[in-house]
Amino acid sequence: MINESSATAERMYEEAVVELLGVLAYGELTAFERMAADAALAPGIQVQASLAGLAALQYDHFVVLRDRLTQMGADPATAMTPFRPAIDAFHAQTRPHDWLEGLMKAYVGDGITADFYREIAQHLDPRTKDLVIAVCDDLEAADFIVETVREAIAEDPRVAGRLALWGRRLVGEMIAQAQLVAAEHDVLSMLVIGGVHRPGVDLAELGQMMSRLEANHARRMAALSLAS
Amino acid sequence: MINESSATAERMYEEAVVELLGVLAYGELTAFERMAADAALAPGIQVQASLAGLAALQYDHFVVLRDRLTQMGADPATAMTPFRPAIDAFHAQTRPHDWLEGLMKAYVGDGITADFYREIAQHLDPRTKDLVIAVCDDLEAADFIVETVREAIAEDPRVAGRLALWGRRLVGEMIAQAQLVAAEHDVLSMLVIGGVHRPGVDLAELGQMMSRLEANHARRMAALSLAS
Repeated sequence: MINESSATAERMYEEAVVELLGVLAYGELTAFERMAADAALAPGIQVQASLAGLAALQYDHFVVLRDRLTQMGADPATAMTPFRPAIDAFHAQTRPHDWLEGLMKAYVGDGITADFYREIAQHLDPRTKDLVIAVCDDLEAADFIVETVREAIAEDPRVAGRLALWGRRLVGEMIAQAQLVAAEHDVLSMLVIGGVHRPGVDLAELGQMMSRLEANHARRMAALSLAS
Repeated sequence: MINESSATAERMYEEAVVELLGVLAYGELTAFERMAADAALAPGIQVQASLAGLAALQYDHFVVLRDRLTQMGADPATAMTPFRPAIDAFHAQTRPHDWLEGLMKAYVGDGITADFYREIAQHLDPRTKDLVIAVCDDLEAADFIVETVREAIAEDPRVAGRLALWGRRLVGEMIAQAQLVAAEHDVLSMLVIGGVHRPGVDLAELGQMMSRLEANHARRMAALSLAS
């Protein structure tokens, strides 16, 4: 009985990892598409090319995740499909009106997403953990965003209020879609809150995790000279 | 006197190559952006991911061209900037209404562009020639487009008429923008039609080149089961 339920737990864990890599892969694929499209909004070729470069990195991450899914015997398209509605809705709700909003979305949106996945990664097997951390590790490449947004605010301080609001909007939409994903995907949620056979984080830890996410978000907004 | 004018010719040739790499680089950068954005229109994740992969290739080409410009002592942004209006106008005029038009644009539009640059490459120094041919060489990666468009036409034959018109529109817009670029950039035009110190193609050759471009375009349209 114990072996059987341990095998079940193992299967559920594998299933949850496939879901996690699926949502991550679709997230990277769409981040790639939207960031590349947003690059076209930039008034100058330097920023346009830099944002395009950041977008191209997301595609590389997508390939790593897709290949790992295949290696695990999962079909990448099948693993990604359940997450299309939530992620597509997020992008539909957060279409930048100009290039500064596009830059903010790349920096703030992807920053908080990466933080979130890195938190989850702490509860995973070493191999999956390393993979998740690797694909979340490109914010260093986004230094040009901080500089560009700060310059834009220095040139026209009225921009700051609008971008601060936009930052709050991005976080709000992200939380809304994350809750939707969590509600619809029990197996995936199990990775965070734990299942019968696996300890997850308790409520106190969950609260601490949220505080860390919030602190990191505030730090990024402050780096842009924006209120969070 | 002869040496001096030969040095002038050499400088003009270098200038023309910088212009050529500039227009190519900006073409690849925007092809990357638009193709990545168009990938989001695809109804299925397979096609979406394949088109994203094709877009990512364009970014790789952009990097090769940008780095070569830097190596030649040119500033990539300065080299690209003069071609923004024409290329941005092309994309504004050829925004796909759906994913099939997006696929067609990637296949037919990039196909004819690559053919054109490959023709020009024949008149260049070996190093530039190899570079241009290398960045124009990814149509093999687009086999999935042929298959997907043919399937869509088989499912709904009415699609064929609309896509055939779209193919003609793409070619028309491309010719219009190419003429604008040629009219505004004498030095660049010199690479094709020749200058005082360098033979270019004569009118008969130019006619033959146009016929080859047309034949290749017709071949691609036929591969999609479309009239050209």
